[in-house]
Amino acid sequence: MTRMQSQPSQAVDVFPDTERRGIYRAIYSRRDIRNFLSDPIPAPVLGRIINAAHHGPSVGFMQPWDFILISDLAVRGQVKELFERERQAAACFFDEPRRSQYLSLKLEGIMESPVNLCITCDPTRAEEVLGRNAIRETDVYSTCCAVQNLWLAARAEGIGVGWVSVLKLPQLRQVLGIPHHVLPVAYLCLGYPTEFPDKPLLETAGWRERTPIDQLLHFDTWGSKEDSQELVDFRQNLPSINDDHYLD
Amino acid sequence: MTRMQSQPSQAVDVFPDTERRGIYRAIYSRRDIRNFLSDPIPAPVLGRIINAAHHGPSVGFMQPWDFILISDLAVRGQVKELFERERQAAACFFDEPRRSQYLSLKLEGIMESPVNLCITCDPTRAEEVLGRNAIRETDVYSTCCAVQNLWLAARAEGIGVGWVSVLKLPQLRQVLGIPHHVLPVAYLCLGYPTEFPDKPLLETAGWRERTPIDQLLHFDTWGSKEDSQELVDFRQNLPSINDDHYLD
Repeated sequence: MTRMQSQPSQAVDVFPDTERRGIYRAIYSRRDIRNFLSDPIPAPVLGRIINAAHHGPSVGFMQPWDFILISDLAVRGQVKELFERERQAAACFFDEPRRSQYLSLKLEGIMESPVNLCITCDPTRAEEVLGRNAIRETDVYSTCCAVQNLWLAARAEGIGVGWVSVLKLPQLRQVLGIPHHVLPVAYLCLGYPTEFPDKPLLETAGWRERTPIDQLLHFDTWGSKEDSQELVDFRQNLPSINDDHYLD
Repeated sequence: MTRMQSQPSQAVDVFPDTERRGIYRAIYSRRDIRNFLSDPIPAPVLGRIINAAHHGPSVGFMQPWDFILISDLAVRGQVKELFERERQAAACFFDEPRRSQYLSLKLEGIMESPVNLCITCDPTRAEEVLGRNAIRETDVYSTCCAVQNLWLAARAEGIGVGWVSVLKLPQLRQVLGIPHHVLPVAYLCLGYPTEFPDKPLLETAGWRERTPIDQLLHFDTWGSKEDSQELVDFRQNLPSINDDHYLD
């Protein structure tokens, strides 16, 4: 089956293959990075990836994000201490052998990476926000989309990003001087990585496996129907969407 | 200033220019689409963009998302009715002239688009989730990152995506048969758009403007310092990151 057969008659703005390849390559080879080289990120590269975040979608075009770039090692040292406490606390909830495995994993590069970046969400950025009435959290959703923009642009620039979620927010607010009404959504470590591993660390470590995509699909309403024609059709198209062969 | 001058000594995995261009072009030309052609999305294209979502980052590699593809017009009609009620309700919170302007905007393409897609978050997908101890909402954050993967891949494929956030979740759950513990994060309309506008609708309509990026930057701790050397340096690199000239 070729894509051209069923393309609409009207002219469609599909990217050229090389540009499309760039998107998919970034998506499939993006990793959560915890091992960094010490080399600084050139200012124009940093500018481009932050600008990529700023062009994320936002509910009511409210652009609720702020960007705190953290170079100061004293500030980062305080964040690292928060991380260490939380890491130990979180370990209490795992049974062996998971607890030891958890504690053996390197989960962040707060001090080694050349710069940290905290992306926040200010719910008060606009007065009445168009589109936020029913689902209050859409401002946070927007901020997460901005983070993903940055993550993918960074990948294309050869920059690794690690999201540190093992942190208590009230304390992080205090360390960074973030106002109480502003939510620190993502605390990121940025820098050139020692490598972009082929697979996610937790997959390689045997922590969890990737879920087969057809187990996550539903048609019209919730409830996967193993024998539905839609699922059969969808599966038939799956070979063309694996990691190594993602274009036509 | 050229990027090569300050690149690290070790080999760095930067994408070729055409592939990097693909990323930035998708990021800058992605729009929230509400006007669709009726042409169906070819199955391999739909497979690729959903697979792109499935390769989003997730806390503890939990992959908390599910994908409900909605073609049935009866189901979509019920969602459209939810939207209409919520649209009217939301209008009550705007003063004139914003109320009339709000009501005049086309905000969705639920019925016209060839397919709708609901992306959900199941917080129970994994037992103890590595990295979710301190910030419970990280599973939802992961789901939003998956949405943004899909949105950018779709843009590269010429497919428009519109995020309908003017919907009450309990009712949406009921219409789609989603279990109570699963959160519908994004209700999306997908299809070939009549156009990808140059700017966001709300910018063109004069609803809100894009915030200058240097107003959103902070260094080391919260509080923009207009005269800080970091901000001066950052600004100097801004000309290279505008929409039309985003590579070196």
